[in-house]
Formats: sequence, structure tokens, C-alpha cells
Amino acid sequence: MIYITRKFHFSASHRVYNPALSDEENLKKYGKCSNPNGHGHNYVMKVTVAGEVDPEIGYVMDLTELKVLVEKYLVDKVDHKNLNLDVDFMKGVLPSTENIALKFWEQIEPVINTDSRKLYSIRIQETINNSVEYRGNN
Amino acid sequence: MIYITRKFHFSASHRVYNPALSDEENLKKYGKCSNPNGHGHNYVMKVTVAGEVDPEIGYVMDLTELKVLVEKYLVDKVDHKNLNLDVDFMKGVLPSTENIALKFWEQIEPVINTDSRKLYSIRIQETINNSVEYRGNN
Amino acid sequence: MIYITRKFHFSASHRVYNPALSDEENLKKYGKCSNPNGHGHNYVMKVTVAGEVDPEIGYVMDLTELKVLVEKYLVDKVDHKNLNLDVDFMKGVLPSTENIALKFWEQIEPVINTDSRKLYSIRIQETINNSVEYRGNN
Amino acid sequence: MIYITRKFHFSASHRVYNPALSDEENLKKYGKCSNPNGHGHNYVMKVTVAGEVDPEIGYVMDLTELKVLVEKYLVDKVDHKNLNLDVDFMKGVLPSTENIALKFWEQIEPVINTDSRKLYSIRIQETINNSVEYRGNN
Amino acid sequence: MIYITRKFHFSASHRVYNPALSDEENLKKYGKCSNPNGHGHNYVMKVTVAGEVDPEIGYVMDLTELKVLVEKYLVDKVDHKNLNLDVDFMKGVLPSTENIALKFWEQIEPVINTDSRKLYSIRIQETINNSVEYRGNN
Amino acid sequence: MIYITRKFHFSASHRVYNPALSDEENLKKYGKCSNPNGHGHNYVMKVTVAGEVDPEIGYVMDLTELKVLVEKYLVDKVDHKNLNLDVDFMKGVLPSTENIALKFWEQIEPVINTDSRKLYSIRIQETINNSVEYRGNN
Repeated sequence: MIYITRKFHFSASHRVYNPALSDEENLKKYGKCSNPNGHGHNYVMKVTVAGEVDPEIGYVMDLTELKVLVEKYLVDKVDHKNLNLDVDFMKGVLPSTENIALKFWEQIEPVINTDSRKLYSIRIQETINNSVEYRGNN
Repeated sequence: MIYITRKFHFSASHRVYNPALSDEENLKKYGKCSNPNGHGHNYVMKVTVAGEVDPEIGYVMDLTELKVLVEKYLVDKVDHKNLNLDVDFMKGVLPSTENIALKFWEQIEPVINTDSRKLYSIRIQETINNSVEYRGNN
Repeated sequence: MIYITRKFHFSASHRVYNPALSDEENLKKYGKCSNPNGHGHNYVMKVTVAGEVDPEIGYVMDLTELKVLVEKYLVDKVDHKNLNLDVDFMKGVLPSTENIALKFWEQIEPVINTDSRKLYSIRIQETINNSVEYRGNN
Repeated sequence: MIYITRKFHFSASHRVYNPALSDEENLKKYGKCSNPNGHGHNYVMKVTVAGEVDPEIGYVMDLTELKVLVEKYLVDKVDHKNLNLDVDFMKGVLPSTENIALKFWEQIEPVINTDSRKLYSIRIQETINNSVEYRGNN
Repeated sequence: MIYITRKFHFSASHRVYNPALSDEENLKKYGKCSNPNGHGHNYVMKVTVAGEVDPEIGYVMDLTELKVLVEKYLVDKVDHKNLNLDVDFMKGVLPSTENIALKFWEQIEPVINTDSRKLYSIRIQETINNSVEYRGNN
Repeated sequence: MIYITRKFHFSASHRVYNPALSDEENLKKYGKCSNPNGHGHNYVMKVTVAGEVDPEIGYVMDLTELKVLVEKYLVDKVDHKNLNLDVDFMKGVLPSTENIALKFWEQIEPVINTDSRKLYSIRIQETINNSVEYRGNN
């Protein structure tokens, strides 16, 4: 088993809040992250795929293919967008980094997994200090 | 002359657009940066102060004092905010990185400059690939 | 299971040596790290907590709570300190990065673990080239 | 079990291609990586060793010893070299990052493993965006 | 005057040697950089343009335009290439980082400079430790 | 004129204090930096030399020569040392980053400058957030 990782960047805005609560209650729960007019981040995402090396090709998976898939299904949908308002698969989801990772996994796992490889991990760094990793059942 | 630099971080959202134009015209001029619901960034700012070393103290300026001033006059006003809507000194200003640097300079130069030191440079990195520097008359 | 990670910084001095040995013997065993007057590092620490996402909140754990706990129990005790002389829980411990990680784990695990989350990993980078990770029984 | 990691750098050139195919077929399969005159990278390698901390010494393994072994058996053989032509243990091997990691593991595992420690992981970053990890049976 | 900077990456191979000298003499003068089969690097380039901010647009220069120009005239010609053999404007030039910067300046200055902006600096980082800057007459 | 820069690392401890003052007065003036048992940093230093490119060689200065000089006259004297106690040219000097840069300049300028090149800048980063630059009369 070899693990290959590609890094991606996207810049998005969001507001972390529970719409069932008042602005005051959200401020108490989420602090400055609940600012009513939103804020934003340069997210850094690392997608790791696990598989065997194809002896003919020397690759677990062509990284250009991985790039094209992740850009089509994830990056192009969230880059320079508002995560609360502009992204179909995030509708009704509180856009914490944890939930972003879980929703991204749902979107991308089916298009990456084949008989010889599988999605192993999605790591999303929200700021230079904070990150989240989801590995599914791995 | 010695140059001292301190790095700051702030996360903010913005929409780069000219309100006198239609969404279509803004899209043509500013591309994805004009997304109507905005997007955001982790901005990295480097503030450089030039001065002589005080022989008694060994410092051009106490970096804790620099930190307190820049946080009070800049970072606290823009971190986890919407640059178009939430920041008093950015009202009516197109929030390009160039304009952010110019407005930040106006805010912070008067409180940094003394007889023995002066603001030398503000650098603002919007993404891992793009940055802007303003040096006033230096 | 989701893994959340927060990064911390602390600057400390230490001397890596065995007090039962002579300076010459320490020099032979620990090289320049045994310099009698000490040396120091900017340590970078990554603390990872594993848990389920609380569906009401969208978080495994509020990162501000994690920050407050790690600063109170670890960072405030070691930052700008001498690891051989100034830190209660390091008394009598050879301050290698391995031992720092083990002692930090002992301090912080009891205050992080709850029914829904547990300390998963502590990584400590001593220099840009060297790091240590401890995961307890994970 | 503690995991210690040391980072290494080497700069090398390579051509990713299958000598059994024509230049056109290689271009189709490997894109710009098959450029006939080659190209190159600053590779970053992280070698992780797992083991118990020796209570006398405070180390899993002296990092200077790890540095000397990895430089002798790996870095000195590939740094400022052509991976297709200059490296004995890469002869006849398609120099994908996956294969480099696998061949490096074969070279270095026997000289690192002892009763109290074992090679745990080799990570090789080919560009700022791409990396590969091999962990053997770990 | 505002300075805007965009970062670019390219991966290339080269051999640093003087063709008028023997391999032994080149080895003496250029060390491992003269390896006959070449080696390579991930070059990082920062291009800085100086100008006034257009008050209508808020930009010194649209960074997308800068990206397109630098990719067309520089990056596409050197990325995944051999700098000694594959690049028209480097023919007969010893590919030291200094000379790469000088030749890049010649290529790109005429297409960047206008009445309201001018090329200010090209910085090229060859390894994590080494870089070169050329500023023309600035 | 071309500017070449090489990066260096050293790990050292220090205490920032004025020996003419009491511990309480030093604490008031220098805060946690005056901790009586000291603390330490991984310093990152960038040394920039300006000169013309030698057309025969393609270099402003052989970077290996620059490395050897800076290691001999600076890095070897401060790495894994206590800046207050172990460094001859820092005796009696308050080891602020400003003063380190000034003293380093005195040590290294005479051995770098020749007819065709001169020391242009020394930058010293004390932490990930703070740095100092000295350029002499440049």
C-alpha cells in the first residue's frame, strides 16, 4: 500500500452559526466566527489516496487525474464562493471545518475509489493553526 | 537604521466589485473575485518599522508595543469581518489588496511614527501566491 | 471519528545531559546539545484530538476551549522558560524531545479526554528538521 | 511507542517514461514529465523511525546517527544526480515518486531496524503540491 | 507607488558547467552542480511589478493578466524542461540562478512595462536555502 | 547588480536583560524575555551579498564559499550556545535581535567584501512572527 497526497487551495467565506438561534446566542456559542456579515479563509486541503503501484505505469494513480477530479467535484464548487449560500451540497449544513470535511468526503469518495485504490484521508486546514482530518473507516 | 518586522494574521471576507456596475460587468472586470455573496482569505500582514537602536534598551521599538498598536488599530477591526460591510475606514473603498494596504497605512502610520522611528512598509499577502507592498515615501 | 489539530509555539532553552556523567562524557554522548550553558529552540507543537462531531454544534471540540486548556496546562509553563530549571513537571527529566512529548501527554490527557473525545497525538518539532510524535495507545 | 522524524533534501533530475514505448506514447501517458531531455525537482524526504525511549539516554535513536545513515545510504547517492542514469539501485526502475519511495525503503530499512526500533515511514514530496508515503507493513 | 508580487513555480533540470573546460575542471569549479548527467530543482520565482493604483479598478495590474504573461513568456518555456537543452533564450548561457534571472528579465520586462507600471524585481529561489534577485536599474 | 541570498539556521539561548537593573526592573522592561534562567530560539538568518555576475563563472559569488565563511565566522560560534555567556563578540552586549544583527555585520562584512561584491543585508528571524534587518549603509 502506497499513499499519494495532493494539495489544493480554495478561498471562501462563511458564517458559523445556527439559524435556529438569535445573533446573541450564536455570538455566545461561536464567538467572532458568527459575525453576521461573515468572514473568510484560504483553505488548504490535502487529499490522500491509498493503493498499489501499477507496475506498468509506476503510479498508484495519475496525479493529473486526481487533480481533475478534485477540482471538478470540490474546488470549482467552493473556490471564491460563500459556503453558506453558494454551494449545493452544503445547503443546510453548518460550515464548520469538520462538516466541510465530511461533506467533501461524500462528494469525492465515489469518484475516486476503484478496485485498485481508495480515498484514504481528507485534511482541511482553515487557518495556519487549525486543521481537521477525516479518514472514513480507515 | 535597523528594520524590524512583525507578522500578523487576519481572516476576512470581501467582494471585489464596483457598485456602479452591473453584476455582469463586475464579473467581466473582476472574474470570480466579484462573486455576489463574497468569498474570503487568511490575510498575512508584515509591518516593518525603521529606526535607530536605543542603546539603553537594545530595541528599535518594543515588539509588544508594536503588536498592541497594530492589533488595536488594524487587526481587531478586520479579523473575522466582512471588509465591504463591517470596517469603518474601508467604507466606500473597493477592497483590493492594494487599497487595503493604502488604508491600513493611513490608520497606523500616525500612531507608530515618533522622532526615533517610522513606519517603513506594510506587506499584505492575500493568498499563498499574491501579495502587495506599500512603503509610503520610503 | 474526526481528528482536529491545533498548532502551538513556545520558545525555551534546555541542556541535554545526564547529571550523573561528567561534561566530557555528556559531550561524547549528546554532542553540542550538552553545551553547559544551554541553548534553545522555537518549539512547534501540534495537539490532535479525536472524536465525533456534535450534530448540534458542528464541532468535535471548540478550538478555543482546546487553546485555553493547552495554554494553561502546557504552553504557559514552558514558553520563555528553561526546561531543566523552570518547569515543575520536567524536574529530574532529561529534556529530550521524546521526554517532553511524554511528559506533556501526562499533563494534558486528563483535561482533554471526555466521553466524546480523546487526546490522539502530540507532535513536537524541535528544529525545522526534527520532530517527535507520541500517540499513547492510539 | 514514539515516532521520530527527520527531514532531508535532495535535488535530482529524472525523466518519467517507459523505454519500451515511443516518445509520442510516453508523452500521451506521462505528459510533460516525459520530456526527453528530463527535468528535475527539489525532493523533500521525511524518514520516521518508531521505537521505545531508552530511559538512560532519553532518545528513541540519536538523530545524528539517523542523519548519518540516511545520508550515506540515500541522500549522497541521489543528491545532484540524474535518477535514471546515476543511481545504482534505481537502474531499470521507472523513477516515479512511488517507486523512489519503495526503492529507498529497501535500501534503508536493513540499516535502521534493530531490536528496539524500526523504520516506520518514508514520505517523499516531489513538488510543493505532491507527495507519496510508504510504510511497509505498518 | 505600490509593489505587487506573484509567485510562480517551475521544475527544471540543468548542468552548471563551462563547455570549454574538461569534466574534471568543471567538477573543481562547480562541484556536484556539474554532474555530467545533470540534476534539477523546483524553482520558485517571485515577480514584482511597481505602479500606481488605478482608482477606477483598485489594482496596479490585474494579477490574472500578470499570471498569463509570465506563464506564456517564462514558465511554459522552462517548466519540466532541461535548461541547457530545451529553452531557446538560454542557449549558450551557463544556467546559474544569476543568469536565469538576467535572461528572464530580458524576456518579460518588455511585455510588462507600460506607462503606469514597470517590472521591479525578479527573485528566483533555487533551493530552500539559496535565492537570487535582480532589479534592473531599480 | 545582482543580490544573492543564503539562509542559515542556529539554535541558541539568551536572556534579554540589563545587568545594571534588578530582576523586577528587568521583568517590567523586558517581560518574559528576561526570565532569569533564560529561554531560546531557532534563529533563521538570511545573508545577502550584492555584486556583478562574473561572466566566466556565472556567479556573483560561489554560494559554497559564502556558506563556509558564514559558518566559520558566525554560525559555528553561536549554534547550540548561550548568547550571553558563550560568544566572544557578544560579551557585554544585550542580546536583542537588533544587537545580534549589528554584531554579526561587524564580524562578517570584512571577510565578504571584495572589489566585486559587498555584504548587502543581514536578516535575522527570532520567531515565526518577528525579524530584524540591518543593511549597513545600503
